[in-house]
Amino acid sequence: VPAERATSTPRTRGADLHLELPAEPAGGLRAGVMEALREAVRTGRLAPGVRLPSSRSLAADLGVARNTVADAYAELVAEGWLTARQGSGTAVARRASPRRPAAPARTGPSTTGPVHDLRPGRPDTASFPRAEWLRATRRALATAPNSAFDYGGPRGRIELRTALADYLARARGVRATPERVVVCSGVLHALQLLGGALRARGVRSIGVEAYGLGGQRAMLARSGLRTPPLPLDAHGARTDDPAGLAGLGAVLLTPAHQFPTGVALHPDRRAAVVDWARASGGLVLEDDYDGEFRYDRHPVGALQGLDPEHVVHLGTTSKALAPGLRLGWMVLPGSLLAEVERQKAGQEFTTGVVEQLTLAELLVSGGYDRHVRARRLAYRRRRDQLVTRLAERAGGVRVAGLSAGLHALLELPPGTEDDVLRAAAWHQVAVHGLDRYRHPDADPLPDALVVGYATPSASAWAGALDALCGALP
Amino acid sequence: VPAERATSTPRTRGADLHLELPAEPAGGLRAGVMEALREAVRTGRLAPGVRLPSSRSLAADLGVARNTVADAYAELVAEGWLTARQGSGTAVARRASPRRPAAPARTGPSTTGPVHDLRPGRPDTASFPRAEWLRATRRALATAPNSAFDYGGPRGRIELRTALADYLARARGVRATPERVVVCSGVLHALQLLGGALRARGVRSIGVEAYGLGGQRAMLARSGLRTPPLPLDAHGARTDDPAGLAGLGAVLLTPAHQFPTGVALHPDRRAAVVDWARASGGLVLEDDYDGEFRYDRHPVGALQGLDPEHVVHLGTTSKALAPGLRLGWMVLPGSLLAEVERQKAGQEFTTGVVEQLTLAELLVSGGYDRHVRARRLAYRRRRDQLVTRLAERAGGVRVAGLSAGLHALLELPPGTEDDVLRAAAWHQVAVHGLDRYRHPDADPLPDALVVGYATPSASAWAGALDALCGALP
Repeated sequence: VPAERATSTPRTRGADLHLELPAEPAGGLRAGVMEALREAVRTGRLAPGVRLPSSRSLAADLGVARNTVADAYAELVAEGWLTARQGSGTAVARRASPRRPAAPARTGPSTTGPVHDLRPGRPDTASFPRAEWLRATRRALATAPNSAFDYGGPRGRIELRTALADYLARARGVRATPERVVVCSGVLHALQLLGGALRARGVRSIGVEAYGLGGQRAMLARSGLRTPPLPLDAHGARTDDPAGLAGLGAVLLTPAHQFPTGVALHPDRRAAVVDWARASGGLVLEDDYDGEFRYDRHPVGALQGLDPEHVVHLGTTSKALAPGLRLGWMVLPGSLLAEVERQKAGQEFTTGVVEQLTLAELLVSGGYDRHVRARRLAYRRRRDQLVTRLAERAGGVRVAGLSAGLHALLELPPGTEDDVLRAAAWHQVAVHGLDRYRHPDADPLPDALVVGYATPSASAWAGALDALCGALP
Repeated sequence: VPAERATSTPRTRGADLHLELPAEPAGGLRAGVMEALREAVRTGRLAPGVRLPSSRSLAADLGVARNTVADAYAELVAEGWLTARQGSGTAVARRASPRRPAAPARTGPSTTGPVHDLRPGRPDTASFPRAEWLRATRRALATAPNSAFDYGGPRGRIELRTALADYLARARGVRATPERVVVCSGVLHALQLLGGALRARGVRSIGVEAYGLGGQRAMLARSGLRTPPLPLDAHGARTDDPAGLAGLGAVLLTPAHQFPTGVALHPDRRAAVVDWARASGGLVLEDDYDGEFRYDRHPVGALQGLDPEHVVHLGTTSKALAPGLRLGWMVLPGSLLAEVERQKAGQEFTTGVVEQLTLAELLVSGGYDRHVRARRLAYRRRRDQLVTRLAERAGGVRVAGLSAGLHALLELPPGTEDDVLRAAAWHQVAVHGLDRYRHPDADPLPDALVVGYATPSASAWAGALDALCGALP
């Protein structure tokens, strides 16, 4: 008879205890009594120190069994809401005064993005191959050994490391064995681990490109590394200048497609940096973030192929699939393997096993290649449209850099970068100026925009391109 | 006519260049020529500095179009394998000398586990609900917004934080709003972030239980925190001793089920530690690693429910689902939220979005509850069997601690712990001695074994129990 035991106002005590039991409390009567008591304490209706009715009395009032109330009291004592003392009955604990969580600080990003999103570094997230990913997950879950679900090793699942070694050899000319591959959450995570490993082997400075991601520089600095800039020109970083490399223990480069200027590292400079590494015992960190996306030719093979003992190859699914996956990899020289494993084991072992095994399935089945091919066509088309449209509508702007990747550099008339960014904001276009990526100690390059043409969905692309043109001189 | 262009031994140069093209090279003829040339360099058949035949000559020898060879040369120049100089043709680059990856260091764990695995801290990985997980992934992928696949915020997906806030309130008495939940990879990852946040607010010492996980202590130490031990007895950590808490900025506790001794924190001590936190401005980190598994009664609610502004609640899917998922969470006081977010944003943002959304689906659909209920029954049965069997076969051994969790403490006759561990190894049983978990500055507790009875699969359990009994006095 739920209605009859729904409320209770015990008359045996001074406390005006009016408990409200829901008609059919979720989790049973005892849980209902407990939650009603907790709520009374929280709201202050039951003040700290107040003695409660006996379990017999409250049970009678509520129309429930005495044991139900006695059990609820005992649990709330165990939880610390109530206290029970021999001879003095049950009371509200003194520390159980109402403490509601304070109103949350609104620190999160707004849920609505910019109207026209041309920020670089992002693929079209609408193109994520959901059905293909689900099929790969099904195969992965059907075949995974039980041990895959246990704590894993710091290097990641062997299935994924094997699939990556094959794929990277095939697609990027990387010379890898599964033993040399370490799975991580992305390039930034890799730099966290490598920064620690480099410091552990006594490195103090790592050269970085004069323009690049500030987050990467900050991550390396967090490991205690200095990050002096290497000057950049139309042939990439000046790795052919011995003075610039003097005193460095490592360099971080984007050889296939410099981010953000979009140029390729010249063959002479590729050779020079490997020579430098061999002669000095230094290391080259090759951030191959968008190496699969080249539109005018077959991609240039990875620098790592030239010397696997002096080049660390870094990759990610963030551009080819989705940043939300948080999946990346390192291919390591033998001399660095144990220290990177030690760094990883000391922090947090692995990315999730289901996503690791799913990516392995996608690589082995060819689904990854198919997706990359389709994306390559789509992004190439967008880049062509960008070039064509700018030639028609913004004669003062030139598209620089390789026909590659997910972004283009738009060279602007001198002194106009800030104005163009203001105009873009006015046209509700989110886009970055080149200066945002400048190393604080580097000389400025001419004014330019960094346009991420892969970011909008297919339906949003034409509008974004129009809005961008409207903002250009 | 593949057979006719499969080999080439150019006669125009001193180099005995015998290229072998596969009959149907993967990736086309150009890729086949490139790989054949790379292989010749790698194996040393083409030495550094050697000049190559002209593209016309090699093309004729191989029976392919001249452009195919010219393109292959150009790509290998771009990759740094070859050099091309005006007037002197194409040559093998000097730094392209053969450098095979060295033989891998064999640092990984052996692939075969112990015969009888009774190590604590692991669920039965064979029980991972693969079909249920796949269904939840399907629902998650069908409903996720495109933006979910973009870079996420440091707190994790709102869908999962909302589902966790509901679940933790319902199952563990946690007082949470989604804004207070931060997704992470597990309790160790949480301690990495919290260690940094505590140091940032000036905390220098965090009290830890006298017996616990050395990896947790090491992680806190890595943030620069001292970790003095709090003595333990049959009522849990001595949080009722003001002298022991003096000078601490925080304490790390396992209130529901102390790891590894298996006792619950006494209600008085729950109250005392909250009082201490309020009076001193300190924080309690509540590691609720196996809070869902209580067999003799409804689980005691989370300590966090007593004071959400002074208790951080930490949880994980590692015991209820699988450690391989790397999914965990924190419920934070408002005062700590911004700093923990800052710590997380500076490292690596998120766990994978698909796994986050899948767990959210599993929580909302009730599949998580169903799985926990089934596991609770199974593990309870195992614990009962352990107790019964030991009473029959090992009279000198007592099972101590709560009827809860995934492990039991077996009290041994004084001075026998090392002998029993040796006997266990002889019986091919992997099991831990209590002393392995002792804080280096803590007084030793009596000899005991820590038995993880959840670890074996259903088929392996009876044999493991037999083998354990055989190793006991």
